[in-house]
Amino acid sequence: MPRYKLTLEYDGRDFVGWQRQDNGPSVQQALETAIHRFCRETVTVVAAGRTDAGVHALGQVAHVDLAAGWPARTVQNAVNFHLKPAAVAVVSAEVADPAFHARFSARARTYRYRIVNRPAPPVLERGRVWWVPRRLDAAAMAEAATVLIGRHDFTSFRAAICQAKSPLRTLDRLAVRRRDDAIEIEAEARSFLHHQVRNMVGALKWVGEGRWTAAHLAAALAARNRAHGGPTAPAEGLVLVAVTY
Amino acid sequence: MPRYKLTLEYDGRDFVGWQRQDNGPSVQQALETAIHRFCRETVTVVAAGRTDAGVHALGQVAHVDLAAGWPARTVQNAVNFHLKPAAVAVVSAEVADPAFHARFSARARTYRYRIVNRPAPPVLERGRVWWVPRRLDAAAMAEAATVLIGRHDFTSFRAAICQAKSPLRTLDRLAVRRRDDAIEIEAEARSFLHHQVRNMVGALKWVGEGRWTAAHLAAALAARNRAHGGPTAPAEGLVLVAVTY
Repeated sequence: MPRYKLTLEYDGRDFVGWQRQDNGPSVQQALETAIHRFCRETVTVVAAGRTDAGVHALGQVAHVDLAAGWPARTVQNAVNFHLKPAAVAVVSAEVADPAFHARFSARARTYRYRIVNRPAPPVLERGRVWWVPRRLDAAAMAEAATVLIGRHDFTSFRAAICQAKSPLRTLDRLAVRRRDDAIEIEAEARSFLHHQVRNMVGALKWVGEGRWTAAHLAAALAARNRAHGGPTAPAEGLVLVAVTY
Repeated sequence: MPRYKLTLEYDGRDFVGWQRQDNGPSVQQALETAIHRFCRETVTVVAAGRTDAGVHALGQVAHVDLAAGWPARTVQNAVNFHLKPAAVAVVSAEVADPAFHARFSARARTYRYRIVNRPAPPVLERGRVWWVPRRLDAAAMAEAATVLIGRHDFTSFRAAICQAKSPLRTLDRLAVRRRDDAIEIEAEARSFLHHQVRNMVGALKWVGEGRWTAAHLAAALAARNRAHGGPTAPAEGLVLVAVTY
Protein backbone atom coordinates (compact mmCIF):
# COMPACT_ATOMS: atom_id res chain seq x y z
CA MET A 1 0.00 0.00 0.00
CA PRO A 2 2.01 3.02 -1.23
CA ARG A 3 2.30 6.10 0.95
CA TYR A 4 2.09 9.50 -0.75
CA LYS A 5 3.63 12.72 0.46
CA LEU A 6 1.47 15.69 -0.55
CA THR A 7 2.52 19.33 -0.39
CA LEU A 8 -0.52 21.56 0.02
CA GLU A 9 -1.51 25.19 -0.48
CA TYR A 10 -4.72 26.49 1.06
CA ASP A 11 -6.60 29.62 1.98
CA GLY A 12 -7.38 29.41 5.69
CA ARG A 13 -10.37 31.76 5.43
CA ASP A 14 -12.45 29.04 3.85
CA PHE A 15 -11.89 26.49 6.62
CA VAL A 16 -12.35 25.84 10.35
CA GLY A 17 -8.71 24.74 10.30
CA TRP A 18 -6.84 21.62 9.25
CA GLN A 19 -8.65 19.14 11.46
CA ARG A 20 -12.11 17.64 10.90
CA GLN A 21 -14.68 19.36 13.09
CA ASP A 22 -18.44 19.41 13.37
CA ASN A 23 -18.78 23.18 12.99
CA GLY A 24 -17.68 23.62 9.39
CA PRO A 25 -15.46 22.54 6.50
CA SER A 26 -11.89 21.55 7.32
CA VAL A 27 -8.93 21.15 4.99
CA GLN A 28 -8.58 17.51 6.05
CA GLN A 29 -12.20 16.80 5.14
CA ALA A 30 -11.88 18.57 1.77
CA LEU A 31 -8.89 16.38 0.92
CA GLU A 32 -10.37 13.12 2.18
CA THR A 33 -13.56 13.80 0.25
CA ALA A 34 -11.64 14.60 -2.95
CA ILE A 35 -9.58 11.42 -2.56
CA HIS A 36 -12.76 9.39 -2.09
CA ARG A 37 -14.28 10.92 -5.21
CA PHE A 38 -11.14 10.08 -7.15
CA CYS A 39 -10.55 6.44 -6.12
CA ARG A 40 -13.47 5.47 -3.81
CA GLU A 41 -11.09 4.84 -0.92
CA THR A 42 -11.96 6.09 2.57
CA VAL A 43 -8.71 7.44 3.95
CA THR A 44 -7.24 9.49 6.78
CA VAL A 45 -4.86 12.23 5.72
CA VAL A 46 -2.20 13.13 8.31
CA ALA A 47 -0.65 16.62 8.24
CA ALA A 48 2.61 18.03 9.60
CA GLY A 49 0.80 20.84 11.40
CA ARG A 50 -2.83 21.15 12.44
CA THR A 51 -3.28 24.77 11.44
CA ASP A 52 -6.05 26.82 13.07
CA ALA A 53 -9.06 28.41 11.42
CA GLY A 54 -7.93 31.28 9.20
CA VAL A 55 -4.29 30.19 9.02
CA HIS A 56 -3.03 29.71 5.45
CA ALA A 57 -0.53 27.30 3.96
CA LEU A 58 1.87 27.50 1.05
CA GLY A 59 3.75 24.34 1.99
CA GLN A 60 1.76 22.19 4.41
CA VAL A 61 2.80 18.55 4.08
CA ALA A 62 0.52 15.56 4.54
CA HIS A 63 0.69 11.83 3.95
CA VAL A 64 -1.92 9.32 2.88
CA ASP A 65 -1.92 5.62 2.01
CA LEU A 66 -3.77 4.46 -1.10
CA ALA A 67 -4.39 0.79 -1.92
CA ALA A 68 -3.97 1.13 -5.69
CA GLY A 69 -0.52 1.99 -7.04
CA TRP A 70 -1.33 5.26 -8.78
CA PRO A 71 1.55 7.34 -10.16
CA ALA A 72 2.08 10.38 -7.91
CA ARG A 73 1.27 12.78 -10.76
CA THR A 74 -2.08 11.04 -11.28
CA VAL A 75 -2.90 11.41 -7.59
CA GLN A 76 -2.00 15.10 -7.72
CA ASN A 77 -4.04 15.90 -10.81
CA ALA A 78 -7.06 13.80 -9.84
CA VAL A 79 -7.23 15.16 -6.30
CA ASN A 80 -6.86 18.73 -7.59
CA PHE A 81 -9.67 18.06 -10.05
CA HIS A 82 -11.99 16.77 -7.31
CA LEU A 83 -11.00 19.49 -4.82
CA LYS A 84 -12.57 22.19 -6.97
CA PRO A 85 -13.89 24.69 -5.99
CA ALA A 86 -12.37 24.26 -2.50
CA ALA A 87 -9.49 26.63 -1.73
CA VAL A 88 -6.93 23.81 -1.45
CA ALA A 89 -4.48 22.49 -4.01
CA VAL A 90 -1.92 19.70 -4.07
CA VAL A 91 1.19 21.60 -5.17
CA SER A 92 3.26 18.45 -5.46
CA ALA A 93 2.89 14.74 -4.79
CA GLU A 94 5.45 12.00 -4.51
CA VAL A 95 5.60 8.37 -3.44
CA ALA A 96 7.19 8.30 0.02
CA ASP A 97 8.90 5.67 2.09
CA PRO A 98 6.37 3.63 4.14
CA ALA A 99 8.18 4.90 7.26
CA PHE A 100 7.60 8.54 6.28
CA HIS A 101 5.21 10.32 8.65
CA ALA A 102 4.17 13.88 7.80
CA ARG A 103 3.96 14.87 11.45
CA PHE A 104 6.56 12.81 13.26
CA SER A 105 9.28 12.78 10.59
CA ALA A 106 9.32 16.58 10.32
CA ARG A 107 12.63 18.18 11.31
CA ALA A 108 11.52 21.81 10.99
CA ARG A 109 8.45 23.92 10.37
CA THR A 110 8.65 27.43 8.92
CA TYR A 111 5.89 29.97 9.42
CA ARG A 112 5.65 33.49 8.01
CA TYR A 113 3.56 36.21 9.57
CA ARG A 114 2.79 39.32 7.53
CA ILE A 115 1.74 42.69 8.93
CA VAL A 116 0.65 45.50 6.60
CA ASN A 117 1.89 48.56 8.43
CA ARG A 118 0.49 51.70 6.82
CA PRO A 119 -2.45 54.08 7.33
CA ALA A 120 -4.43 52.62 4.39
CA PRO A 121 -6.10 49.24 4.81
CA PRO A 122 -4.81 46.34 2.70
CA VAL A 123 -6.82 45.63 -0.43
CA LEU A 124 -5.16 43.01 -2.63
CA GLU A 125 -3.88 41.20 0.48
CA ARG A 126 -6.96 41.57 2.68
CA GLY A 127 -7.67 38.40 4.63
CA ARG A 128 -4.05 37.34 4.33
CA VAL A 129 -2.34 39.95 6.51
CA TRP A 130 -2.75 41.76 9.83
CA TRP A 131 -3.41 45.46 9.28
CA VAL A 132 -1.61 47.69 11.81
CA PRO A 133 -2.13 51.33 10.73
CA ARG A 134 0.34 52.92 13.19
CA ARG A 135 4.01 52.78 12.31
CA LEU A 136 5.90 49.97 14.07
CA ASP A 137 9.64 50.03 14.82
CA ALA A 138 10.75 46.94 12.90
CA ALA A 139 14.37 47.29 14.02
CA ALA A 140 13.33 47.17 17.68
CA MET A 141 11.15 44.15 16.94
CA ALA A 142 14.02 42.38 15.18
CA GLU A 143 16.38 43.00 18.08
CA ALA A 144 13.87 41.92 20.73
CA ALA A 145 13.04 38.77 18.78
CA THR A 146 16.51 37.38 19.56
CA VAL A 147 15.40 37.05 23.21
CA LEU A 148 13.07 34.22 22.19
CA ILE A 149 15.53 32.24 20.09
CA GLY A 150 16.89 29.05 21.64
CA ARG A 151 15.49 26.39 23.95
CA HIS A 152 12.94 27.80 26.41
CA ASP A 153 9.81 27.06 28.38
CA PHE A 154 7.31 28.89 26.15
CA THR A 155 4.35 28.68 28.56
CA SER A 156 3.86 32.47 28.28
CA PHE A 157 3.24 32.11 24.53
CA ARG A 158 1.17 28.94 24.63
CA ALA A 159 -2.61 28.73 24.24
CA ALA A 160 -4.51 27.51 27.31
CA ILE A 161 -5.95 24.69 25.21
CA CYS A 162 -2.51 23.49 24.03
CA GLN A 163 -2.26 19.70 24.35
CA ALA A 164 1.53 19.32 24.12
CA LYS A 165 3.04 17.41 27.03
CA SER A 166 5.95 19.81 27.46
CA PRO A 167 6.10 23.62 27.11
CA LEU A 168 9.79 23.34 26.15
CA ARG A 169 10.57 24.17 22.54
CA THR A 170 13.69 25.14 20.62
CA LEU A 171 13.12 28.18 18.45
CA ASP A 172 15.78 28.12 15.74
CA ARG A 173 14.94 31.35 13.97
CA LEU A 174 12.75 34.39 14.55
CA ALA A 175 13.53 37.04 11.96
CA VAL A 176 11.75 40.37 11.56
CA ARG A 177 12.22 42.60 8.55
CA ARG A 178 10.46 45.53 6.98
CA ARG A 179 9.66 45.35 3.28
CA ASP A 180 8.20 48.71 2.25
CA ASP A 181 4.81 48.96 3.96
CA ALA A 182 4.91 45.44 5.35
CA ILE A 183 6.68 43.70 8.22
CA GLU A 184 7.45 40.02 7.76
CA ILE A 185 8.22 37.74 10.68
CA GLU A 186 9.64 34.29 9.97
CA ALA A 187 9.74 31.63 12.66
CA GLU A 188 11.39 28.24 12.40
CA ALA A 189 11.46 25.36 14.89
CA ARG A 190 11.21 21.60 14.98
CA SER A 191 7.73 22.12 16.38
CA PHE A 192 5.62 24.87 17.91
CA LEU A 193 3.12 25.02 20.76
CA HIS A 194 -0.49 25.90 20.01
CA HIS A 195 -0.73 29.62 19.05
CA GLN A 196 2.98 30.05 19.77
CA VAL A 197 3.77 31.96 16.59
CA ARG A 198 0.69 34.21 16.85
CA ASN A 199 1.45 34.92 20.52
CA MET A 200 5.09 35.77 19.81
CA VAL A 201 3.96 38.08 16.99
CA GLY A 202 1.43 39.76 19.30
CA ALA A 203 4.20 40.44 21.84
CA LEU A 204 6.56 41.71 19.12
CA LYS A 205 3.87 44.13 17.96
CA TRP A 206 3.90 45.63 21.47
CA VAL A 207 7.66 46.04 21.08
CA GLY A 208 7.13 47.71 17.70
CA GLU A 209 4.69 50.13 19.31
CA GLY A 210 7.22 51.05 22.00
CA ARG A 211 4.94 49.63 24.67
CA TRP A 212 7.45 46.87 25.49
CA THR A 213 11.25 46.70 25.31
CA ALA A 214 13.36 43.59 24.74
CA ALA A 215 13.68 43.42 28.56
CA HIS A 216 9.88 43.27 28.92
CA LEU A 217 9.81 40.46 26.38
CA ALA A 218 12.50 38.57 28.31
CA ALA A 219 10.52 39.04 31.53
CA ALA A 220 7.36 37.80 29.81
CA LEU A 221 9.18 34.65 28.69
CA ALA A 222 10.65 34.10 32.18
CA ALA A 223 7.20 34.48 33.80
CA ARG A 224 6.02 31.17 32.28
CA ASN A 225 2.49 32.45 32.47
CA ARG A 226 0.24 33.15 29.47
CA ALA A 227 -1.26 36.14 31.32
CA HIS A 228 2.16 37.85 31.04
CA GLY A 229 2.71 37.01 27.35
CA GLY A 230 0.87 39.86 25.61
CA PRO A 231 -1.84 39.63 22.94
CA THR A 232 -2.47 37.00 20.26
CA ALA A 233 -2.03 38.17 16.65
CA PRO A 234 -4.97 37.34 14.35
CA ALA A 235 -4.87 34.08 12.38
CA GLU A 236 -5.22 35.71 8.95
CA GLY A 237 -1.62 36.98 8.82
CA LEU A 238 -0.09 33.53 9.37
CA VAL A 239 1.13 31.15 6.66
CA LEU A 240 2.72 27.72 7.09
CA VAL A 241 5.44 28.17 4.48
CA ALA A 242 7.40 24.92 4.59
CA VAL A 243 8.01 21.68 6.45
CA THR A 244 11.48 20.19 6.28
CA TYR A 245 12.26 16.47 6.61
CA MET B 1 -9.32 75.08 -4.94
CA PRO B 2 -6.54 72.62 -3.99
CA ARG B 3 -5.79 69.68 -6.22
CA TYR B 4 -4.99 66.34 -4.56
CA LYS B 5 -2.89 63.55 -5.99
CA LEU B 6 -4.14 60.18 -4.76
CA THR B 7 -2.28 56.87 -5.08
CA LEU B 8 -4.73 53.97 -5.16
CA GLU B 9 -4.77 50.24 -4.61
CA TYR B 10 -7.73 48.19 -5.78
CA ASP B 11 -8.92 44.68 -6.52
CA GLY B 12 -10.14 44.65 -10.11
CA ARG B 13 -12.44 41.67 -9.54
CA ASP B 14 -14.92 43.84 -7.69
CA PHE B 15 -15.31 46.40 -10.48
CA VAL B 16 -16.34 46.86 -14.11
CA GLY B 17 -13.07 48.80 -14.50
CA TRP B 18 -11.88 52.28 -13.62
CA GLN B 19 -14.46 54.24 -15.59
CA ARG B 20 -18.08 54.86 -14.60
CA GLN B 21 -20.41 52.56 -16.50
CA ASP B 22 -24.06 51.62 -16.34
CA ASN B 23 -23.47 47.89 -15.98
CA GLY B 24 -21.90 47.79 -12.52
CA PRO B 25 -19.67 49.39 -9.90
CA SER B 26 -16.55 51.19 -11.11
CA VAL B 27 -13.51 52.31 -9.13
CA GLN B 28 -14.17 55.92 -10.19
CA GLN B 29 -17.72 55.76 -8.87
CA ALA B 30 -16.61 54.17 -5.56
CA LEU B 31 -14.14 57.01 -5.04
CA GLU B 32 -16.48 59.82 -6.08
CA THR B 33 -19.18 58.44 -3.80
CA ALA B 34 -16.77 58.16 -0.85
CA ILE B 35 -15.58 61.74 -1.44
CA HIS B 36 -19.18 62.94 -1.52
CA ARG B 37 -19.96 61.15 1.74
CA PHE B 38 -16.90 62.74 3.31
CA CYS B 39 -17.32 66.39 2.26
CA ARG B 40 -20.61 66.61 0.30
CA GLU B 41 -18.78 67.75 -2.83
CA THR B 42 -19.72 66.26 -6.21
CA VAL B 43 -16.44 65.70 -7.97
CA THR B 44 -14.85 64.02 -10.97
CA VAL B 45 -11.78 61.93 -10.23
CA VAL B 46 -9.31 61.64 -13.12
CA ALA B 47 -6.97 58.63 -13.25
CA ALA B 48 -3.65 58.01 -15.00
CA GLY B 49 -4.94 54.84 -16.62
CA ARG B 50 -8.48 53.65 -17.23
CA THR B 51 -7.95 50.03 -16.25
CA ASP B 52 -10.33 47.37 -17.58
CA ALA B 53 -12.66 45.14 -15.62
CA GLY B 54 -10.66 42.66 -13.56
CA VAL B 55 -7.37 44.57 -13.78
CA HIS B 56 -5.86 45.39 -10.39
CA ALA B 57 -3.83 48.34 -9.15
CA LEU B 58 -1.15 48.76 -6.53
CA GLY B 59 -0.18 52.26 -7.66
CA GLN B 60 -2.89 53.84 -9.80
CA VAL B 61 -2.71 57.63 -9.56
CA ALA B 62 -5.68 60.00 -9.71
CA HIS B 63 -6.33 63.65 -9.10
CA VAL B 64 -9.32 65.50 -7.70
CA ASP B 65 -10.09 69.13 -6.79
CA LEU B 66 -11.80 69.86 -3.47
CA ALA B 67 -13.17 73.29 -2.53
CA ALA B 68 -12.24 73.11 1.16
CA GLY B 69 -8.55 73.11 2.06
CA TRP B 70 -8.34 69.77 3.87
CA PRO B 71 -4.94 68.45 4.89
CA ALA B 72 -3.96 65.60 2.55
CA ARG B 73 -3.85 63.09 5.44
CA THR B 74 -7.45 64.00 6.37
CA VAL B 75 -8.57 63.40 2.79
CA GLN B 76 -6.80 60.02 2.78
CA ASN B 77 -8.23 58.80 6.07
CA ALA B 78 -11.75 60.11 5.48
CA VAL B 79 -12.01 58.71 1.96
CA ASN B 80 -10.66 55.35 3.16
CA PHE B 81 -13.26 55.36 5.92
CA HIS B 82 -16.11 56.02 3.49
CA LEU B 83 -14.79 53.59 0.85
CA LYS B 84 -15.44 50.61 3.13
CA PRO B 85 -16.21 47.87 2.29
CA ALA B 86 -15.26 48.59 -1.35
CA ALA B 87 -12.01 46.96 -2.46
CA VAL B 88 -10.23 50.30 -2.99
CA ALA B 89 -7.88 52.21 -0.71
CA VAL B 90 -6.06 55.52 -0.93
CA VAL B 91 -2.49 54.43 -0.21
CA SER B 92 -1.20 57.98 -0.12
CA ALA B 93 -2.52 61.49 -0.70
CA GLU B 94 -0.72 64.76 -1.25
CA VAL B 95 -1.55 68.29 -2.28
CA ALA B 96 -0.44 68.70 -5.90
CA ASP B 97 0.36 71.63 -8.14
CA PRO B 98 -2.81 72.98 -9.84
CA ALA B 99 -1.12 72.14 -13.18
CA PHE B 100 -0.70 68.48 -12.18
CA HIS B 101 -2.84 66.15 -14.27
CA ALA B 102 -2.92 62.46 -13.34
CA ARG B 103 -3.31 61.38 -16.95
CA PHE B 104 -1.49 63.98 -19.05
CA SER B 105 1.44 64.69 -16.70
CA ALA B 106 2.41 61.00 -16.47
CA ARG B 107 5.84 60.21 -17.87
CA ALA B 108 5.67 56.44 -17.45
CA ARG B 109 3.29 53.65 -16.51
CA THR B 110 4.47 50.31 -15.15
CA TYR B 111 2.35 47.19 -15.37
CA ARG B 112 3.12 43.74 -13.99
CA TYR B 113 1.57 40.57 -15.32
CA ARG B 114 1.80 37.40 -13.25
CA ILE B 115 1.43 33.85 -14.56
CA VAL B 116 1.31 30.92 -12.15
CA ASN B 117 3.03 28.19 -14.15
CA ARG B 118 2.60 24.84 -12.43
CA PRO B 119 0.28 21.82 -12.63
CA ALA B 120 -1.65 22.84 -9.47
CA PRO B 121 -4.12 25.70 -9.63
CA PRO B 122 -3.30 28.86 -7.65
CA VAL B 123 -5.05 29.12 -4.30
CA LEU B 124 -3.81 32.09 -2.27
CA GLU B 125 -3.37 34.11 -5.49
CA ARG B 126 -6.51 32.98 -7.33
CA GLY B 127 -8.17 35.86 -9.15
CA ARG B 128 -4.90 37.74 -9.27
CA VAL B 129 -2.88 35.58 -11.65
CA TRP B 130 -3.22 33.68 -14.92
CA TRP B 131 -2.91 29.94 -14.35
CA VAL B 132 -0.95 28.17 -17.11
CA PRO B 133 -0.45 24.53 -16.03
CA ARG B 134 2.02 23.53 -18.77
CA ARG B 135 5.63 24.54 -18.31
CA LEU B 136 6.58 27.69 -20.25
CA ASP B 137 10.10 28.51 -21.42
CA ALA B 138 10.66 31.80 -19.60
CA ALA B 139 14.11 32.30 -21.12
CA ALA B 140 12.65 32.11 -24.64
CA MET B 141 9.91 34.55 -23.62
CA ALA B 142 12.48 36.98 -22.18
CA GLU B 143 14.55 36.88 -25.34
CA ALA B 144 11.58 37.29 -27.68
CA ALA B 145 10.25 40.19 -25.60
CA THR B 146 13.17 42.34 -26.76
CA VAL B 147 11.62 42.34 -30.25
CA LEU B 148 8.81 44.55 -28.94
CA ILE B 149 10.97 47.09 -27.10
CA GLY B 150 11.32 50.50 -28.75
CA ARG B 151 9.09 52.71 -30.88
CA HIS B 152 6.69 50.69 -33.04
CA ASP B 153 3.27 50.64 -34.62
CA PHE B 154 1.53 48.31 -32.14
CA THR B 155 -1.64 47.77 -34.19
CA SER B 156 -1.17 43.98 -33.90
CA PHE B 157 -1.44 44.25 -30.11
CA ARG B 158 -4.21 46.83 -29.93
CA ALA B 159 -7.84 46.15 -29.10
CA ALA B 160 -10.32 46.82 -31.93
CA ILE B 161 -12.14 49.26 -29.64
CA CYS B 162 -8.97 51.26 -28.84
CA GLN B 163 -9.66 54.99 -29.15
CA ALA B 164 -6.07 56.28 -29.35
CA LYS B 165 -5.39 58.44 -32.41
CA SER B 166 -2.07 56.79 -33.18
CA PRO B 167 -0.98 53.14 -32.88
CA LEU B 168 2.61 54.29 -32.36
CA ARG B 169 3.98 53.72 -28.88
CA THR B 170 7.44 53.56 -27.32
CA LEU B 171 7.86 50.49 -25.15
CA ASP B 172 10.73 51.23 -22.77
CA ARG B 173 10.87 47.91 -20.95
CA LEU B 174 9.43 44.43 -21.31
CA ALA B 175 11.11 42.09 -18.86
CA VAL B 176 10.23 38.44 -18.31
CA ARG B 177 11.55 36.44 -15.40
CA ARG B 178 10.74 33.19 -13.65
CA ARG B 179 10.35 33.23 -9.89
CA ASP B 180 9.86 29.65 -8.74
CA ASP B 181 6.46 28.57 -10.06
CA ALA B 182 5.55 31.98 -11.41
CA ILE B 183 6.50 34.06 -14.43
CA GLU B 184 6.43 37.83 -14.03
CA ILE B 185 6.29 40.18 -16.98
CA GLU B 186 6.91 43.87 -16.40
CA ALA B 187 6.08 46.44 -19.04
CA GLU B 188 6.89 50.12 -18.94
CA ALA B 189 6.00 52.90 -21.38
CA ARG B 190 4.87 56.49 -21.39
CA SER B 191 1.47 55.13 -22.39
CA PHE B 192 -0.09 51.94 -23.71
CA LEU B 193 -2.78 51.16 -26.25
CA HIS B 194 -5.99 49.47 -25.11
CA HIS B 195 -5.23 45.80 -24.16
CA GLN B 196 -1.62 46.25 -25.31
CA VAL B 197 -0.05 44.62 -22.27
CA ARG B 198 -2.51 41.72 -22.20
CA ASN B 199 -2.04 41.15 -25.94
CA MET B 200 1.75 41.21 -25.66
CA VAL B 201 1.54 38.73 -22.76
CA GLY B 202 -0.77 36.47 -24.78
CA ALA B 203 1.77 36.42 -27.63
CA LEU B 204 4.66 35.79 -25.22
CA LYS B 205 2.79 32.83 -23.78
CA TRP B 206 2.74 31.32 -27.29
CA VAL B 207 6.52 31.82 -27.37
CA GLY B 208 6.80 30.13 -23.95
CA GLU B 209 4.83 27.17 -25.29
CA GLY B 210 7.17 26.85 -28.27
CA ARG B 211 4.32 27.63 -30.64
CA TRP B 212 6.00 30.87 -31.71
CA THR B 213 9.65 31.95 -31.98
CA ALA B 214 11.01 35.48 -31.61
CA ALA B 215 10.83 35.65 -35.43
CA HIS B 216 7.10 34.90 -35.35
CA LEU B 217 6.65 37.65 -32.79
CA ALA B 218 8.58 40.10 -35.00
CA ALA B 219 6.42 39.10 -37.97
CA ALA B 220 3.27 39.61 -35.89
CA LEU B 221 4.41 43.11 -34.95
CA ALA B 222 5.29 43.93 -38.56
CA ALA B 223 1.88 42.72 -39.79
CA ARG B 224 0.14 45.68 -38.09
CA ASN B 225 -2.99 43.59 -37.89
CA ARG B 226 -4.65 42.43 -34.67
CA ALA B 227 -5.60 39.16 -36.37
CA HIS B 228 -1.87 38.31 -36.50
CA GLY B 229 -1.11 39.31 -32.88
CA GLY B 230 -2.01 36.15 -31.00
CA PRO B 231 -4.36 35.75 -28.02
CA THR B 232 -5.29 38.21 -25.25
CA ALA B 233 -4.18 37.23 -21.73
CA PRO B 234 -6.94 37.38 -19.09
CA ALA B 235 -7.39 40.59 -17.11
CA GLU B 236 -6.95 39.00 -13.69
CA GLY B 237 -3.16 38.62 -14.00
CA LEU B 238 -2.57 42.32 -14.67
CA VAL B 239 -1.66 44.96 -12.08
CA LEU B 240 -0.98 48.67 -12.64
CA VAL B 241 2.06 48.91 -10.37
CA ALA B 242 3.16 52.53 -10.67
CA VAL B 243 2.78 55.80 -12.54
CA THR B 244 5.80 58.07 -12.77
CA TYR B 245 5.63 61.87 -13.14
